[in-house]
Amino acid sequence: MKTVRVIKIGGNVVDNPNSLKEFIERFSQMKGPKILIHGGGKEATRISGALGIDTTMIDGRRVTDAATLDVVTMVYAGLINKRVVSMLQHKGINAIGLCGADAGVMKASRRNAVPVDFGFVGDLSQDNVDIHFISSLLSDGMVPVFSAIAYDGAEGLLNCNADSVASVVAEAMSLIASVDLIYCFEKPGVLADPEDNSTVIPEITPELYTILKNSGKVSGGMLPKIDNAFSAIAGGVRSVCITHVSELMTGKATVIHL
Amino acid sequence: MKTVRVIKIGGNVVDNPNSLKEFIERFSQMKGPKILIHGGGKEATRISGALGIDTTMIDGRRVTDAATLDVVTMVYAGLINKRVVSMLQHKGINAIGLCGADAGVMKASRRNAVPVDFGFVGDLSQDNVDIHFISSLLSDGMVPVFSAIAYDGAEGLLNCNADSVASVVAEAMSLIASVDLIYCFEKPGVLADPEDNSTVIPEITPELYTILKNSGKVSGGMLPKIDNAFSAIAGGVRSVCITHVSELMTGKATVIHL
Repeated sequence: MKTVRVIKIGGNVVDNPNSLKEFIERFSQMKGPKILIHGGGKEATRISGALGIDTTMIDGRRVTDAATLDVVTMVYAGLINKRVVSMLQHKGINAIGLCGADAGVMKASRRNAVPVDFGFVGDLSQDNVDIHFISSLLSDGMVPVFSAIAYDGAEGLLNCNADSVASVVAEAMSLIASVDLIYCFEKPGVLADPEDNSTVIPEITPELYTILKNSGKVSGGMLPKIDNAFSAIAGGVRSVCITHVSELMTGKATVIHL
Repeated sequence: MKTVRVIKIGGNVVDNPNSLKEFIERFSQMKGPKILIHGGGKEATRISGALGIDTTMIDGRRVTDAATLDVVTMVYAGLINKRVVSMLQHKGINAIGLCGADAGVMKASRRNAVPVDFGFVGDLSQDNVDIHFISSLLSDGMVPVFSAIAYDGAEGLLNCNADSVASVVAEAMSLIASVDLIYCFEKPGVLADPEDNSTVIPEITPELYTILKNSGKVSGGMLPKIDNAFSAIAGGVRSVCITHVSELMTGKATVIHL
């Protein structure tokens, strides 16, 4: 196995039937070994609400008490994961859905309760990803589909950030392959003007990132996404790009460079 | 691989933390290749209720409209499956959770809407179980943990009966191994007097089954369980027994014979 693509789709893609369908179509056509990581926060928030469980977000991360952990486990590892896997099977892709507990493939450490107690939230490290299991699936022609639920190493589960799962899995696989990481979201890339999709910034270096942050041009949810991208590059990933589902493989994207 | 054990646990085991813990402990100690199939109907009914979705049962089977299919997918393939898998990992068992869409391992046909329209409910056949994939997992020392959600062969999922999943997987695996099938439930076996746990019927043949049915001594949920057991034996399974979690491997059980 020489190259592997790791593709991440967020809650906005997963939550929109048309976007998801378009993504599945494009993803299915991509040749070679590939790994999919999906989010699903919007649906988790919706189902939490229907169950009368309050959703608390701090810095864009979900505070995960025991009841919320059950919800994200159901929604990410159950509903969305199996929906995506069956849609891929229909396209002839031999997908297999995984959470971190399955085959112990991805372990996380519960995040320290100081300064913020996020509850059952995990932090990942590339050392805790079983790349031999993943590569044996890829060698058998399968496509692993990860939800962002990790195994805690004891008898529990931890809620993780799907962008972080993508970067950590990509870093881990970089030990045995050249890995290209693609974040798919609702914009065609990082935009100089968030209101104008024609203003995709084609390349972001650490220097430019500092300028963009300081000027406030890039903010909110884009910041952890770009941080994850830089951390993946630093961790050995060959390339990282951020793009829209519709632009997957067209070249219109923001590429992150060191 | 010479012998394989297929063990099924029902909603009553899964729904009771102490029973589940006891089962996990006993199951973990069983040597040799093994496959676990779990139900989860009680939790599905509870979560359906909390979401304001009515539960309709006909002849002990859940009528599964689109909203209910989402619930059972969440609860069986997500919440319960991953809970069981992480508990097994903690005991050093390399469990991997699967629904039928994962690796396309188990396909079902949607049940005919006549005479009763059960909605998204599937019927299984041993020809539609990928025994090569399952045996490759077993050969690698893994323990497949199946929820009763099957792949419909297109882009959807179907709700199946967990007892049927157990018998069909056991039958399919019988083509390549000697298979022992064990149904774990809340009683120590089939009882001559349902109120008296000391009245376990040690063996049931088709002749005795007819007598028990006609006398009304065996009724309700036991009937499909025994029917599945006979069908498994007819399908090539070496032995089938029905027992309590606490009696797993002690020998106190009802054994089904042809």
